[in-house]
Amino acid sequence: MRVLVINGPNLNLLGQRETNLYGDVSLEDINYAMQKLAAEKQVEIDFFQSNHEGELVDRIQQAQGRVDAMIINAGALTHYSIALLDALKAVNIPFIEVHLTNIYAREEFRHQSLLSPIARGGIFGLGAAGYSLALRAVCEWFK
Amino acid sequence: MRVLVINGPNLNLLGQRETNLYGDVSLEDINYAMQKLAAEKQVEIDFFQSNHEGELVDRIQQAQGRVDAMIINAGALTHYSIALLDALKAVNIPFIEVHLTNIYAREEFRHQSLLSPIARGGIFGLGAAGYSLALRAVCEWFK
Amino acid sequence: MRVLVINGPNLNLLGQRETNLYGDVSLEDINYAMQKLAAEKQVEIDFFQSNHEGELVDRIQQAQGRVDAMIINAGALTHYSIALLDALKAVNIPFIEVHLTNIYAREEFRHQSLLSPIARGGIFGLGAAGYSLALRAVCEWFK
Amino acid sequence: MRVLVINGPNLNLLGQRETNLYGDVSLEDINYAMQKLAAEKQVEIDFFQSNHEGELVDRIQQAQGRVDAMIINAGALTHYSIALLDALKAVNIPFIEVHLTNIYAREEFRHQSLLSPIARGGIFGLGAAGYSLALRAVCEWFK
Amino acid sequence: MRVLVINGPNLNLLGQRETNLYGDVSLEDINYAMQKLAAEKQVEIDFFQSNHEGELVDRIQQAQGRVDAMIINAGALTHYSIALLDALKAVNIPFIEVHLTNIYAREEFRHQSLLSPIARGGIFGLGAAGYSLALRAVCEWFK
Amino acid sequence: MRVLVINGPNLNLLGQRETNLYGDVSLEDINYAMQKLAAEKQVEIDFFQSNHEGELVDRIQQAQGRVDAMIINAGALTHYSIALLDALKAVNIPFIEVHLTNIYAREEFRHQSLLSPIARGGIFGLGAAGYSLALRAVCEWFK
Amino acid sequence: MRVLVINGPNLNLLGQRETNLYGDVSLEDINYAMQKLAAEKQVEIDFFQSNHEGELVDRIQQAQGRVDAMIINAGALTHYSIALLDALKAVNIPFIEVHLTNIYAREEFRHQSLLSPIARGGIFGLGAAGYSLALRAVCEWFK
Amino acid sequence: MRVLVINGPNLNLLGQRETNLYGDVSLEDINYAMQKLAAEKQVEIDFFQSNHEGELVDRIQQAQGRVDAMIINAGALTHYSIALLDALKAVNIPFIEVHLTNIYAREEFRHQSLLSPIARGGIFGLGAAGYSLALRAVCEWFK
Amino acid sequence: MRVLVINGPNLNLLGQRETNLYGDVSLEDINYAMQKLAAEKQVEIDFFQSNHEGELVDRIQQAQGRVDAMIINAGALTHYSIALLDALKAVNIPFIEVHLTNIYAREEFRHQSLLSPIARGGIFGLGAAGYSLALRAVCEWFK
Amino acid sequence: MRVLVINGPNLNLLGQRETNLYGDVSLEDINYAMQKLAAEKQVEIDFFQSNHEGELVDRIQQAQGRVDAMIINAGALTHYSIALLDALKAVNIPFIEVHLTNIYAREEFRHQSLLSPIARGGIFGLGAAGYSLALRAVCEWFK
Amino acid sequence: MRVLVINGPNLNLLGQRETNLYGDVSLEDINYAMQKLAAEKQVEIDFFQSNHEGELVDRIQQAQGRVDAMIINAGALTHYSIALLDALKAVNIPFIEVHLTNIYAREEFRHQSLLSPIARGGIFGLGAAGYSLALRAVCEWFK
Amino acid sequence: MRVLVINGPNLNLLGQRETNLYGDVSLEDINYAMQKLAAEKQVEIDFFQSNHEGELVDRIQQAQGRVDAMIINAGALTHYSIALLDALKAVNIPFIEVHLTNIYAREEFRHQSLLSPIARGGIFGLGAAGYSLALRAVCEWFK
Repeated sequence: MRVLVINGPNLNLLGQRETNLYGDVSLEDINYAMQKLAAEKQVEIDFFQSNHEGELVDRIQQAQGRVDAMIINAGALTHYSIALLDALKAVNIPFIEVHLTNIYAREEFRHQSLLSPIARGGIFGLGAAGYSLALRAVCEWFK
Repeated sequence: MRVLVINGPNLNLLGQRETNLYGDVSLEDINYAMQKLAAEKQVEIDFFQSNHEGELVDRIQQAQGRVDAMIINAGALTHYSIALLDALKAVNIPFIEVHLTNIYAREEFRHQSLLSPIARGGIFGLGAAGYSLALRAVCEWFK
Repeated sequence: MRVLVINGPNLNLLGQRETNLYGDVSLEDINYAMQKLAAEKQVEIDFFQSNHEGELVDRIQQAQGRVDAMIINAGALTHYSIALLDALKAVNIPFIEVHLTNIYAREEFRHQSLLSPIARGGIFGLGAAGYSLALRAVCEWFK
Repeated sequence: MRVLVINGPNLNLLGQRETNLYGDVSLEDINYAMQKLAAEKQVEIDFFQSNHEGELVDRIQQAQGRVDAMIINAGALTHYSIALLDALKAVNIPFIEVHLTNIYAREEFRHQSLLSPIARGGIFGLGAAGYSLALRAVCEWFK
Repeated sequence: MRVLVINGPNLNLLGQRETNLYGDVSLEDINYAMQKLAAEKQVEIDFFQSNHEGELVDRIQQAQGRVDAMIINAGALTHYSIALLDALKAVNIPFIEVHLTNIYAREEFRHQSLLSPIARGGIFGLGAAGYSLALRAVCEWFK
Repeated sequence: MRVLVINGPNLNLLGQRETNLYGDVSLEDINYAMQKLAAEKQVEIDFFQSNHEGELVDRIQQAQGRVDAMIINAGALTHYSIALLDALKAVNIPFIEVHLTNIYAREEFRHQSLLSPIARGGIFGLGAAGYSLALRAVCEWFK
Repeated sequence: MRVLVINGPNLNLLGQRETNLYGDVSLEDINYAMQKLAAEKQVEIDFFQSNHEGELVDRIQQAQGRVDAMIINAGALTHYSIALLDALKAVNIPFIEVHLTNIYAREEFRHQSLLSPIARGGIFGLGAAGYSLALRAVCEWFK
Repeated sequence: MRVLVINGPNLNLLGQRETNLYGDVSLEDINYAMQKLAAEKQVEIDFFQSNHEGELVDRIQQAQGRVDAMIINAGALTHYSIALLDALKAVNIPFIEVHLTNIYAREEFRHQSLLSPIARGGIFGLGAAGYSLALRAVCEWFK
Repeated sequence: MRVLVINGPNLNLLGQRETNLYGDVSLEDINYAMQKLAAEKQVEIDFFQSNHEGELVDRIQQAQGRVDAMIINAGALTHYSIALLDALKAVNIPFIEVHLTNIYAREEFRHQSLLSPIARGGIFGLGAAGYSLALRAVCEWFK
Repeated sequence: MRVLVINGPNLNLLGQRETNLYGDVSLEDINYAMQKLAAEKQVEIDFFQSNHEGELVDRIQQAQGRVDAMIINAGALTHYSIALLDALKAVNIPFIEVHLTNIYAREEFRHQSLLSPIARGGIFGLGAAGYSLALRAVCEWFK
Repeated sequence: MRVLVINGPNLNLLGQRETNLYGDVSLEDINYAMQKLAAEKQVEIDFFQSNHEGELVDRIQQAQGRVDAMIINAGALTHYSIALLDALKAVNIPFIEVHLTNIYAREEFRHQSLLSPIARGGIFGLGAAGYSLALRAVCEWFK
Repeated sequence: MRVLVINGPNLNLLGQRETNLYGDVSLEDINYAMQKLAAEKQVEIDFFQSNHEGELVDRIQQAQGRVDAMIINAGALTHYSIALLDALKAVNIPFIEVHLTNIYAREEFRHQSLLSPIARGGIFGLGAAGYSLALRAVCEWFK
């Protein structure tokens, strides 16, 4: 099984900025933990982060036929990028939506996710642990 | 650590009804799996299900001082029970909100959860596995 | 054929209160008339009234496999009880929604019924006669 | 007692079109059944169908002083014809609103009826049987 | 100067129905009074009433080049007939909108007139007198 | 009969400003024309203009018992002064609302008048003539 | 005179939870103070608290004919329980709505009370004192 | 192949009125151009225009079984005639919606077409050419 | 302790107008009753009423440093005067909002108070008694 | 060049109240700084502050022909005073809108300014400096 | 004449994905067909596709002075990219908006196009043929 | 002090396009003027413009620790780029929002800025001068 983990705009800053909100774990730390769990579960895993909507769309399109599941934290694009939504519908790879923070406890405009309706499921507000839990869930699908 | 798992209206029917939507695992099966995981993690766990909002409020009030974390699937009450919300605010025990289905892929009125803003985090659409993942997350908090 | 007639909150007061709005026929009178019509149509009929949402949910769950059709006046719960809606979807027994008054000629919040979209059909504003008409309609289904 | 049955736009196609939605009974069949029931109940009955809002308004105006009750399925006009609403208010003849389908289980714009607030009552979703039930209800009024 | 007075659906019932709301003056009385005032002001005047939107559109189209001003009470069509609005824009004859009743003191849906934004002006709530005042205003334009 | 004509904020500038919108007739001209018509109709007439909401409220309160009818153009206050509305309800003197321009052809916020629902009637978009027509209408009431 | 004081969900926790919001006075303290004032005013007083909507409805129904006035703090149910509203309309006993906190300074969904429109009046934000003031007000009615 | 071209209210005025908006080509010119193209494509073509919603509904009903495709410019009725929508759903003939002007660059109420959701496709803002393009598209379907 | 009682537009008419709504007690009567209670409670009390928003703002500004608490019935200004709101926030004197009538049982636009969110608390619908109850509440604060 | 600086309700309290929000600079200080800059730029400058909407309208009307540009902070009136808007449109003097605070970071109702659409431009959130910047901008216009 | 055809995000996947919705024709096929028609019409044609909003904006800017007309299918960006809208307004080259599917028969958020109001016209729901029809329309403009 | 000036999509076209709206000053001219003022104020200044949201996010992230203040005109992205908002929150550098035009006098969708609530302040509608004024304001902060 091959899993692709996609992170959107500003998630490269994790652990450096607004640590009271996002925690002090860096994206590298998170990826490292997932890498370890993936190894343990004998799952191939790949990571991609970009601040550019277009690059995220390109990357998702390339996943077609090469990836079995995705874990996606689209960051701010979650709330307005119909292009991302369309790319995900086009490749039709099952994915789990992850958010580090509880988006329903934040600004009104963060309460709506364009991606949720087509996600298999989602995890929010559980911090860095959310990614690993998502990976566990994905592993269950292919057991 | 003591964990209380609360299920709201109609979740007692799991595994018997609308299995295409909710899966064919019963609430007993789910609880059994959690019980096993709890034992493994050396966590005390308790379960409560009711179709009555009032009984759920009573049970949450009683948890005060006796429970360290809650995992809650309030079912339909998620969307309108301010009484449940107030009980949860009153006892102030950290909890994770779980939904078996992807509520954002269903009717409009299921897209809003009154409980999400005060939950620590949430898991939706991952079926029965969502409960175990929530328990894992809770265990991390007290490690 | 077995029919269950369910009445929600405050319908036990029929005939005593707000008679200008609801008429002076009591729930017992209504049930008696239905009982007579049921006998005539050779239909088994049962009645349940409660002011408790939870009890109504319990009762609907128990109807599963024991009842062929339901006639439901959920009273005020019509407009906000998603728990009732879920119970009705879960048991999947065809039902007719009845309202004594014309809910569309009353307060704005009574114009929307959560139950209507999943009802087979409905009758409103025809007073006590609405129940008997509903029973006639139900009888047609199984002819 | 004299009853007028009014059907609006496209109801002349009943039984020929969209039979999965509207059933395979024609308007003639429905009228015939009502005619029979009317005879049995010793009620004078008349029928009118038109695809023209203006003709429906004209016909309702002419009913004044010649008709004791009306049964009306205004079809699509239900949702936007204030002219029909005004004609009905002007003649002030008690009427029952009938819809073959469950309009609350269809498109959003069919959920609101301009006529409901001034109808004595209504029946929806019970198919062709709805007309006969309405006629029975009307007969009760004048008993 | 030639003036055309147009009345829409149900205004033919004036003086007979809902007299508490619309007064007991008939449309003939109103027209007669206007006829007299027109004679006095040496204005040619013509009258048209219909319950049919299509006939009203036809009549307005024919007015082109034959009429200098119009006085229009479109009745219920005021609130939804874009076809009427388009006819009025097409012929581009200045007109005054008249309503017998105070439409802003009635149901919410009567508060919005599609025709007002393209009318020269309007008079509402002044009963039968409104028509004569409108005629006086029109006469001023061509003095 | 005694009539009071009330004009609100900025109407003192009539004839000097935005003449393309409001015309080049001054408030003095309008009042003079009304004075003449009032004399002709043997009606006592008085005028008041202020840019201060509070003074308009004071003046309306003082009209109680001294005035039989009012003609009011509240200018901008039309759209937000509940204080003016309350003063008018308190003194309960019948009044006609006048607007020089067609407020329904202007900005959205001018489409709603707080005063219309309690006015006897209204005239809009007929320019300075609107005041005289209103006075004629008022004279009819007391004939 | 007999007065019934009704408290809804979570008000049994007063004085123990969220004391910064609700104060540190318990419901028993509040009731005791009211009991004393009632004795002084020679009024019979009774108290009822429940977390169950159904029990509150039952209790209100039983008050019919046995109680002259009610003081009600429905807690969270204030904002969505149409069943409670209907019970209060049915028994038609004058009541005062009380809220310990200023509900208009809290979450948006607490700004609307379903009960206010049928209450005689209400007191909010004055803490425990609100109940005693309400009792004083009630006593005035029957002086 | 047989094609029916339907034009709604006020389109008979094309070329005479508001030519800055609608162009100076008459409906006869448009039909003539289509006739020529139809002949070239060996398609049978028929034309119908009416200002009456009822006549348009009648005509669409009659098309059933006699027409393979329709090209429809319903004019103002586009935006409110549910009756037309229902007639089109009933006959279930594939059709293309045409608008001469760019309805999205005009008044807000012209931005929503009731017919679009059931049209095969649509062409707007391309003037008279839109009809011929629609005919070309229709011809492709049956090639 | 010094208390200032502020009454807004039209409250000077109390007891003379709309007595069915506001009662037949005059503002002088109300003030007299408060004066007496204030004397009894040994509280200094002052009164101010104006129909002018600006004067009310001026008076509230002057209260700074001279008044310990305010009782305010801003009348119509309650619903739109942000200037009043700002003045109250600026002086930061605790106040109780009073309304004679139950504003939630009246027109929609009276349901929202701009002042409530910054009031300490409020009393509505209890008539003239509301002022005295407010004074009692204020006295409790400084006991 | 002559410039008029207008300040609305409660701005006379600057520097004394809510200094955390508005800063500790008084209106006199601000005016003094502008006076100095005006002298330097050889511009005539005048100042006006009032808590009365009517006085502000009067003052703006008087500016006609005597003032070349205005700098306006209408305070709370910014958000609801259509009278002020109309006065500004009437005199048609170019003006810059200034707000000390960032109104978009405050309550929802402060996000909309009635004046912005007719202002030449605006400056918000830059504190006392905003006035001087506005004066600099105005000076550029007439260079 | 030079025409530029612009396709937005995910349109590079045409013919491979969601073929039930978008058909099995690839973007290359579509471009080839247009190339042929362009040759036939002696029109110079160029093509550009990107998943990056920024690249689309860049490309549109470069078209200035080099292109006479554009045919644009902005894909998902149609519904939220104000940047694209601004680029199109800036270069002011007439363009036709094309959508393969009937966007009005899909999700609510696809019903609104930001580009439509400034397009010359549009074609939707006619599949690959829509592009060629658009090219024909463009050719007519320069004939 | 180091200042970064950021300009979003289409601002590179300044001075060439829509000059009636945006003026004929180019971005180079604006930057040159700012450069001069910066030199005079002894401030280090840097400029960045891009049509790509992702590049703007990247650039803002890099500013962290290298820039003391920013002046930002995000162009169209102002109204929908939550990614930009998040980048600005992440780096937490104080910034002033600048718009050349009065966005409140343009299309509805330009009235809301996502960035305003987190900006220190803003300047709109003052054309190219707005940038220099912003720079002056920034200089004041660090004096």
